[in-house]
Amino acid sequence: MSLQHSEALIKIIIFLALHTVVSTTIIPKMAKHLTDRNTDYSRWYNELVVQADLAQHSDVKGCMVIKPYGFAIWERMKEILDQKFKETGHQNAYFPLFIPKSYLSKEASHVEGFAKECAVVTHYRLKNDPEGQGVVVDPDAKLEEELIVRPTSETIIWNTYKNWIQSYRDLPLLINQWANVVRWEMRTRLFLRTAEFLWQEGHTAHATKGEAIEETIKMLEVYADFAESYMAMPVIKGVKTESERFAGAEDTYCIEALMQDGKALQAGTSHFLGQNFAKAFDVKFADKTGGMDHVWATSWGVSTRLMGALIMTHSDDQGLVLPPELAPIQMVMVPIYKGEEQLEKIKTVMQSLEIELIEKGIRVKIDLDDQRKPGWKFAEYELKGVPLRLAIGPRDLENGTCEVAKRITGEKTSFELEGLAPKIATMLAEIQAEMFNKSKAYRDDHITEVDDFETFKQVLDEKGGFVSAHWDGTAETEDKIKDLTKATIRCIPQDVKPEDGVCVLTGQPSEQRVLFAKAY
Amino acid sequence: MSLQHSEALIKIIIFLALHTVVSTTIIPKMAKHLTDRNTDYSRWYNELVVQADLAQHSDVKGCMVIKPYGFAIWERMKEILDQKFKETGHQNAYFPLFIPKSYLSKEASHVEGFAKECAVVTHYRLKNDPEGQGVVVDPDAKLEEELIVRPTSETIIWNTYKNWIQSYRDLPLLINQWANVVRWEMRTRLFLRTAEFLWQEGHTAHATKGEAIEETIKMLEVYADFAESYMAMPVIKGVKTESERFAGAEDTYCIEALMQDGKALQAGTSHFLGQNFAKAFDVKFADKTGGMDHVWATSWGVSTRLMGALIMTHSDDQGLVLPPELAPIQMVMVPIYKGEEQLEKIKTVMQSLEIELIEKGIRVKIDLDDQRKPGWKFAEYELKGVPLRLAIGPRDLENGTCEVAKRITGEKTSFELEGLAPKIATMLAEIQAEMFNKSKAYRDDHITEVDDFETFKQVLDEKGGFVSAHWDGTAETEDKIKDLTKATIRCIPQDVKPEDGVCVLTGQPSEQRVLFAKAY
Repeated sequence: MSLQHSEALIKIIIFLALHTVVSTTIIPKMAKHLTDRNTDYSRWYNELVVQADLAQHSDVKGCMVIKPYGFAIWERMKEILDQKFKETGHQNAYFPLFIPKSYLSKEASHVEGFAKECAVVTHYRLKNDPEGQGVVVDPDAKLEEELIVRPTSETIIWNTYKNWIQSYRDLPLLINQWANVVRWEMRTRLFLRTAEFLWQEGHTAHATKGEAIEETIKMLEVYADFAESYMAMPVIKGVKTESERFAGAEDTYCIEALMQDGKALQAGTSHFLGQNFAKAFDVKFADKTGGMDHVWATSWGVSTRLMGALIMTHSDDQGLVLPPELAPIQMVMVPIYKGEEQLEKIKTVMQSLEIELIEKGIRVKIDLDDQRKPGWKFAEYELKGVPLRLAIGPRDLENGTCEVAKRITGEKTSFELEGLAPKIATMLAEIQAEMFNKSKAYRDDHITEVDDFETFKQVLDEKGGFVSAHWDGTAETEDKIKDLTKATIRCIPQDVKPEDGVCVLTGQPSEQRVLFAKAY
Repeated sequence: MSLQHSEALIKIIIFLALHTVVSTTIIPKMAKHLTDRNTDYSRWYNELVVQADLAQHSDVKGCMVIKPYGFAIWERMKEILDQKFKETGHQNAYFPLFIPKSYLSKEASHVEGFAKECAVVTHYRLKNDPEGQGVVVDPDAKLEEELIVRPTSETIIWNTYKNWIQSYRDLPLLINQWANVVRWEMRTRLFLRTAEFLWQEGHTAHATKGEAIEETIKMLEVYADFAESYMAMPVIKGVKTESERFAGAEDTYCIEALMQDGKALQAGTSHFLGQNFAKAFDVKFADKTGGMDHVWATSWGVSTRLMGALIMTHSDDQGLVLPPELAPIQMVMVPIYKGEEQLEKIKTVMQSLEIELIEKGIRVKIDLDDQRKPGWKFAEYELKGVPLRLAIGPRDLENGTCEVAKRITGEKTSFELEGLAPKIATMLAEIQAEMFNKSKAYRDDHITEVDDFETFKQVLDEKGGFVSAHWDGTAETEDKIKDLTKATIRCIPQDVKPEDGVCVLTGQPSEQRVLFAKAY
């Protein structure tokens, strides 16, 4: 059977599948199709997240349910990051979900940033409604001090570190926590902005300023490497301006990625906290000479927001596109058959291939579901972003061949089954590189150097992406530009070259360009 | 150097270490010693948990901090359990932390069990105190409906399943969640009873009653295998009486372990929920014939409580004793040396052994900390329950030997370094078996068949452990026995043989023995 014939056959199968379904329960799944990105990017995103079974809104305002398929991708991210944290000497621990209200006030700028929109626990008991309607809050069970569901854990952790750190021998203290956090949000979007989200937060303590800064930058590098090598998502490493800094930090380093709609997304942050939290919680250590000093701190985090970044970096109008490194299923095998006998033969071939692939560490699935037609399956795995799809039909069986389709390009190739496993491994590695290169080309193409404010606005409106421009270094100008264009300074890039120029808005002197963009 | 000499040397080193330390920061760590178990078991436990760096109380009432060493053990437990869940076809997902108050009332008995002592979120914003004292709850930000921090997730999950399940094709639905939960507790103990704890909760949906019961029992088997093969903790599988059943379950299966003080500990539960939650949340499915029926459910969970069980099953007056399968460090290597030159030579030997051990999948640590003396390290790793400790001194270096000490017995053996790695692997396997056998012998020795109430009370008071006795099957008798003895029915064992007898309290006829015990 030629490729063209098999294409035609598949179309027929899809047609039949679409028109022979009777159960009402299947129709919603068959009817899946996405709004085009060009038509409505935001709607495309929302539909994709739900239809690809990644996540959904829950009945609890602002909280999401992460569905098994979405969670499997997050688990893969966690696993890789966790290993990198451990390789760089960090240990995991767990700190309380609740923070006494007064702790938030201990670090002056921290409270401004975090003590506002948050979930407040005021009572610890319910009782049967005296009027017989379910349960009500027991007014007698009011907490003396309200508890805040952690929006981030600096305060509770530094309050604990106070007892863990006495001497230079206790330093550095390199700890990470995987946890859920809550920041009340009025306008939420799945993965990108939710009231509750999952994240990791590293909290480290050091004897010197230099060591703490080194740690901050080291973890930024870990994040950048993860984003580029695993998510296939190019990032710009840089430092935030004062206005965009973490509440309580001396410096916030970040990695910034570019989404397909030209908006930037902050994908991870690493904060140099100076001695702010050590002073707020009185954490001192005895140095080698016996002198006492406050400890130097860092914190750094990435969250389920990375899922949003992953989706928006690679996916297309057919659905999710996953880089092989993070795909829960790297290749799916779909048999195309008539009758039990053919199925059995194809199954045998697939299972023997499966063993070879598993030996190479490839995550593979054989889809033997006899309730679904191949066409349905093809569409489903496309929607779910599985990098490779292998199909074997009766003619393939005769010829010892198979058809392999690449999700990223849709390209199909016929291969001999003999010696296929190493080719699949190579293809997966190639796809990983191809995805990174494609995203990088797009990103690089969307960094525009601009020297006047008219062009600045025009580029933001028409082309999008990062605008590299001179800025006079004042928060006032930054604010004014934000008001006028909705663009913020995403970062002062790490590798920026000194260059004399004038601020794109005020004409005041500037020594370097910074990156502006509209952002998620 | 003979073993005796090296013992003497170590004692001298310990003496010197104890008496030459000047920094105040080290004295508390050197002074570690535990209350004997016989003197005060409960105090021994509390001291051990803190001194072995497993966990500590936080400033937030009832919430604990799980310290890195304790968390590493929990992570190992998670990793093994997670793999077992996946091997039995389950997927992980994540559901919201918050449950709308009204959801708890939907399943009648569930609300009685869980809607009482819980953390209630009533507000979503703080604001600056108008009087300038930190932050206060913003009265304008009161939630229309209060949110409960999940004490368990049946309600929020079944409310979600309603939209996931329409047809028999969607079943079985086999989902697990790793999460934090909160049950307000007035009297807390680290790991055993804390307001917030970490756990996993499996929630599955099935087309038939039979399948759901099969799942319930399958997961009980997974727990039992985990407890026995990894925790080296023998358990009795059984079913709870009605009074001890999970709120909302038709049947609660459990594994019960015995602690060294003769008290039982429920180590895991697996609930057959019947159609209770499906009815409460209206989850129906179309079967193959097109008929509609409510779905059948199970839920099952284990928590950080297992850490408490692990500690109390094996540890001794010197500290923690860890089974090799769960030990973050399976063998520690401690060099005993004078001067840099000796250290370098010992280090080389240890590093080459380390490579061989890592290749065998053994988790090993070389402790090169030059701030601590060997004696200090020996005591520290004993306290932390590291199964094997290997020491190499100058004489060993000459002879190509080393000394290996077993934590569980304290027994020391001199080995040739040549060909040591496989012996270490064997020793670890032997220790795992030895620990299980030891706990099992103790447990078996503490199941006492009793036929009259005087002996019943006497055994509970003097010997402790499980009492196997006839019971008339009524909740009244169960309650009365609890009032009189503090013992509850831990379970009706799975393998109990029918046997005619009379109730130990009432003399009413009984067809089988059940297991009573005082319990954690």
